[in-house]
Amino acid sequence: MKVHLTRRYLFSASHRLHCDALSEEANRTVYGKCNNPHGHGHNYALEVTVSGQVNSNTGMVCDLVELDEAVHGEVLGRFDHMNLNVLEEFSRAVPTTENLSAIIFEILKQNFGAAHLEKVRLEETAMNSFEYCGT
Amino acid sequence: MKVHLTRRYLFSASHRLHCDALSEEANRTVYGKCNNPHGHGHNYALEVTVSGQVNSNTGMVCDLVELDEAVHGEVLGRFDHMNLNVLEEFSRAVPTTENLSAIIFEILKQNFGAAHLEKVRLEETAMNSFEYCGT
Amino acid sequence: MKVHLTRRYLFSASHRLHCDALSEEANRTVYGKCNNPHGHGHNYALEVTVSGQVNSNTGMVCDLVELDEAVHGEVLGRFDHMNLNVLEEFSRAVPTTENLSAIIFEILKQNFGAAHLEKVRLEETAMNSFEYCGT
Amino acid sequence: MKVHLTRRYLFSASHRLHCDALSEEANRTVYGKCNNPHGHGHNYALEVTVSGQVNSNTGMVCDLVELDEAVHGEVLGRFDHMNLNVLEEFSRAVPTTENLSAIIFEILKQNFGAAHLEKVRLEETAMNSFEYCGT
Amino acid sequence: MKVHLTRRYLFSASHRLHCDALSEEANRTVYGKCNNPHGHGHNYALEVTVSGQVNSNTGMVCDLVELDEAVHGEVLGRFDHMNLNVLEEFSRAVPTTENLSAIIFEILKQNFGAAHLEKVRLEETAMNSFEYCGT
Amino acid sequence: MKVHLTRRYLFSASHRLHCDALSEEANRTVYGKCNNPHGHGHNYALEVTVSGQVNSNTGMVCDLVELDEAVHGEVLGRFDHMNLNVLEEFSRAVPTTENLSAIIFEILKQNFGAAHLEKVRLEETAMNSFEYCGT
Repeated sequence: MKVHLTRRYLFSASHRLHCDALSEEANRTVYGKCNNPHGHGHNYALEVTVSGQVNSNTGMVCDLVELDEAVHGEVLGRFDHMNLNVLEEFSRAVPTTENLSAIIFEILKQNFGAAHLEKVRLEETAMNSFEYCGT
Repeated sequence: MKVHLTRRYLFSASHRLHCDALSEEANRTVYGKCNNPHGHGHNYALEVTVSGQVNSNTGMVCDLVELDEAVHGEVLGRFDHMNLNVLEEFSRAVPTTENLSAIIFEILKQNFGAAHLEKVRLEETAMNSFEYCGT
Repeated sequence: MKVHLTRRYLFSASHRLHCDALSEEANRTVYGKCNNPHGHGHNYALEVTVSGQVNSNTGMVCDLVELDEAVHGEVLGRFDHMNLNVLEEFSRAVPTTENLSAIIFEILKQNFGAAHLEKVRLEETAMNSFEYCGT
Repeated sequence: MKVHLTRRYLFSASHRLHCDALSEEANRTVYGKCNNPHGHGHNYALEVTVSGQVNSNTGMVCDLVELDEAVHGEVLGRFDHMNLNVLEEFSRAVPTTENLSAIIFEILKQNFGAAHLEKVRLEETAMNSFEYCGT
Repeated sequence: MKVHLTRRYLFSASHRLHCDALSEEANRTVYGKCNNPHGHGHNYALEVTVSGQVNSNTGMVCDLVELDEAVHGEVLGRFDHMNLNVLEEFSRAVPTTENLSAIIFEILKQNFGAAHLEKVRLEETAMNSFEYCGT
Repeated sequence: MKVHLTRRYLFSASHRLHCDALSEEANRTVYGKCNNPHGHGHNYALEVTVSGQVNSNTGMVCDLVELDEAVHGEVLGRFDHMNLNVLEEFSRAVPTTENLSAIIFEILKQNFGAAHLEKVRLEETAMNSFEYCGT
């Protein structure tokens, strides 16, 4: 009996969308207000979906404490209340929510093994969200 | 690296569910209160999901401005603050949210090419939603 | 010990904002898209706030069943899945949400006496709401 | 033309997570606060997703009244305002939301045939949800 | 410059509404399903509103860490994942949300002094909420 | 007939909480993670409440287009997608949400006269909000 479990986490960060390989004018065209020089920020909502067989004794897919430890320790501890642009993860990649969702997926893939990681979904605003489920 | 992006839009419209091919009594049975003679209305929430490779320069799946232009110009401009029953799109089809979601999918399929259109999801109320992902 | 209790109800209706005392052009200017000829609609969320002393036996301000009966019978039964413009209540008043909230307040004032009616709050969309608390 | 329809229902119940096959200490470790001796409770949100061809006359996947009857009669009538632990369904299974979502799926599979049952999604809290789509 | 600050907390608990001073039949009439013998539960959302002058140096009404400590220590630690009926606070009072909101207000009045406690608002479900602001 | 109208707007910005008059250590103590050196950000939700007599012809408190122009032009145009710390408004005040809500109130007081400004409410996150209603 396979069940999917999705857990939601909240964090806040700032970023500026700017690509060094593009001209200033191209940056303004591509990113619009998101290219404003001093950056801006978001309350991100992160939804992590894992799946697995339900243990017939415990009735659970996995221990949520372990999932919370991986997400708090490896994801929120790294990105919450941070400026994404100054982090090593974004030294060569623009901190778009597309890239951030893929980075978080890879971090969890390596740090959480108690169930199968299906998907990472990241809400940038109430109107925009992004999903990555690996390659 | 393929990412799904979902963007949410809001619009308001009215409709009356009534099928000319059915008797008055059958209409009342099939549609209940939604068949009330003068119509009623909803705040629809439209979620458009597209997917694509993340551009390694920009870090984006596609330009949201282009998606917004397609949705505002071709969908919201056509349906927002309208009575669906009097529109040409519903001259031969009942304006159920099932039919509306499929029509919006086809409109976007023809008017937005910057990423792959995956799905259209339409919330009719806080309790009801419909999804169409093409044939 | 006085407590306020707020209960939320959902209904859907359509309306067209048009004032017969104004010219067609003035109507377009005042109401914009809301003046579109065939009307449009909303999912309204109605919040009714009442207050009263907490009964020391039951621990309750009032019987919610009585409040539900008043709201379902006198408000939702009248307005849900209706076109507000054709109702008698709006024969001489434009069916704005301002007017609708005041009409609902007066209906409940006359039909619910088990606690003190404090306020009616009506959400027209996720972005707009109106409150009326009597004269 | 195949469309997915999702309908949301709300109910409240209590449970205590405790597995008789485990020691008291193991129960505390596995379930944490959820093992507190007298139980606790949740407002569950149940989302039922069905799919089917849109009827070319009615424009609908299925009659929502039939779906509501199945869910109200067979699911909400059984679980709403109940202590899950004392129900026969949980005489041999721990009332985790994983198990509850699978039980609800099987109940609906047997009691609703007007469209294809795709998925049951159960929100335990605003931060936790579970999905089951059969075997 | 006086500002109101509202902070939202989540907890889960179970209760059974039953008044010993009333007959079994009266209990069924007064509380309906909420009188079901083995109890049920809710995800409560607690909103605490405090007010105060904004400190001209820090730009803050009060230290949120202090407010969190009071709420986590004295409120959530006492009620989260509990059966309210077995707690001392409800040995002589029915655990309605009216009574719970007043009890929480009094607890915070005594345990948080860094700003003026204005109001406690408690959501029992998405459709029901209660407010208490003292006597 | 006096009605209150509340309209909700969304914007995103970044800030760092740091008070020059305090030591580095005091800043860490007072602001915690919000003092992180490169700042972080939020999706703010702004709710503006105005009140007035309902015009007996139009059925409206005021023209929402005028309110939108004031908020878009004077508030969102100034703060959306900005780093609050580099703005002139915060050259001598810490960009807490307390201070931001008071600044927005004063801006609207001077730039919107079509109805009485009652209150500005600013949600910093889903869990924190602030209200200012003038002096």
